[in-house]
Amino acid sequence: MRQETATFETRLKHNALAIEALLGRLLGLSVEADEIARPENLLVAMRHGVLNGGKRLRPFLVIECASLLGGSVEAALRVGAALECIHCYSLVHDDLPAMDDDDIRRGQPTVHKAFDEATAILAGDSLLTFAFDIIASPETPLADAQKTALVLALARAAGHGGMAGGQALDLAAEKAAPDEAGIVTLQAMKTGALLRFACEAGAIVAGAGPVDRQHLRSFGEKIGLAFQLADDLLDLTADAATMGKATGKDAARGKGTLVALHGQPWAESRLEQLVAEAEALLEPYGARSSILAETARFIANRRN
Amino acid sequence: MRQETATFETRLKHNALAIEALLGRLLGLSVEADEIARPENLLVAMRHGVLNGGKRLRPFLVIECASLLGGSVEAALRVGAALECIHCYSLVHDDLPAMDDDDIRRGQPTVHKAFDEATAILAGDSLLTFAFDIIASPETPLADAQKTALVLALARAAGHGGMAGGQALDLAAEKAAPDEAGIVTLQAMKTGALLRFACEAGAIVAGAGPVDRQHLRSFGEKIGLAFQLADDLLDLTADAATMGKATGKDAARGKGTLVALHGQPWAESRLEQLVAEAEALLEPYGARSSILAETARFIANRRN
Repeated sequence: MRQETATFETRLKHNALAIEALLGRLLGLSVEADEIARPENLLVAMRHGVLNGGKRLRPFLVIECASLLGGSVEAALRVGAALECIHCYSLVHDDLPAMDDDDIRRGQPTVHKAFDEATAILAGDSLLTFAFDIIASPETPLADAQKTALVLALARAAGHGGMAGGQALDLAAEKAAPDEAGIVTLQAMKTGALLRFACEAGAIVAGAGPVDRQHLRSFGEKIGLAFQLADDLLDLTADAATMGKATGKDAARGKGTLVALHGQPWAESRLEQLVAEAEALLEPYGARSSILAETARFIANRRN
Repeated sequence: MRQETATFETRLKHNALAIEALLGRLLGLSVEADEIARPENLLVAMRHGVLNGGKRLRPFLVIECASLLGGSVEAALRVGAALECIHCYSLVHDDLPAMDDDDIRRGQPTVHKAFDEATAILAGDSLLTFAFDIIASPETPLADAQKTALVLALARAAGHGGMAGGQALDLAAEKAAPDEAGIVTLQAMKTGALLRFACEAGAIVAGAGPVDRQHLRSFGEKIGLAFQLADDLLDLTADAATMGKATGKDAARGKGTLVALHGQPWAESRLEQLVAEAEALLEPYGARSSILAETARFIANRRN
């Protein structure tokens, strides 16, 4: 168990460094074909929004799911970088005054604080757009059919039927508290869709058939639910210093969460159940999937 | 000439109706595969930002360029709809208080006025994302290689090396007026990149080789320059009622334009020259390209 954890943590850290390095290179100043120029101030804001030392959990899932099925790590790394651009754009826009109005993210000023609102809007737009550039780029060593499948799945996960729609529901929830089904839908969209995509993307990168693809998609769904539940627990119990961002905001805003609805003991037991279900989905892959099982436990037990 | 104009106007109007109908259908309430739910308020805001009776000039260029080279009109229509989503997202975000702060667009309240800022940000994000969904969708009858080429070219045209970067330069230009080269770069990115993409996309849809693709790309560049010059002339001379939006804002903000730099007679003569250059690029295609030549003249001479 200790050995396994050490491997997991090493791999997670190694992955974060690799993603950081790749994103840093991709967001460098050299102009790509079809681009006219890259405005430096906008690039600096994009880098501020992306190169923030995050855990890079979503790219990690892409890479580990691809590896499980024998996919190219190089391709998975680029798809992971694209996914991280989407995740980070959503943070940049969600932090805006008109949205969640957050000044601090990972202990640093948010993009609209470090720059200005207009630049934060454009940096978010540009990161969102850049994700599709990265996937479709000739430098991503995948077949066109894989790239098309990834673009479609990512657009659906990130768009009005996924993450962006979830954020819209979240804003509406401040005015009229959703019922339990509403909370589940909101969270499946806002947080779950990208985590589900991360796992499914690994399968697409590996050229997996529909069975493996569905398996990893379901695994992604389970850990998406666990992620959100752990997040809601953390919002209730952690302090701002641990999280590097404001906490206790859900309760302050009267937002409904499953933790608020059913209580902490229920949430902790539900988390255990979700991890068990996620692990069960990995059984067909045997010992090779131990890192993914460890990831599910990490997501459920994380403290920041 | 009269006959040709009538044909052009009929086709432009027919195209606008077809794009409006397709976008209306695509932004309907039925949930697509991989989507969890479509929040109605967000969809209504997206529709407000898109279904606004515009001329749909960019989709028109995709369709006419594809037709010129024997491409599928059905595929071109869907790529045109995707491009229109990008164009409209940029208008929704550019109109925000933190950006150009416009209350009226096409005689209607802008999205953040009709809804709120958070919804306008999310509607823009969702339209941007949806563009890539439309292209990659199985309903778009193109080969995966064509879809990948379209995604890459569109992301580069719309992103930090294209339209979004141009908007960043435009905001910076309010603080420090750019020189002539700076104005040309700004405009090539902010307005030119999408018009160039529209024409190149038609070639990609038609499965054209590199020579035709480059030809139509150059044609798109010329009409992009003409479009911006005509826009700058209109900002100087038209009134708000004709334009359906605020005018005279460039001068009020001290923004440099080529018209301000060189004067109206120079701009009118330069417009004629650009139209001639655009027409010359169509010569290899003979009479079949008369609609595109007419489009170039329409862009140069438009009064709203």
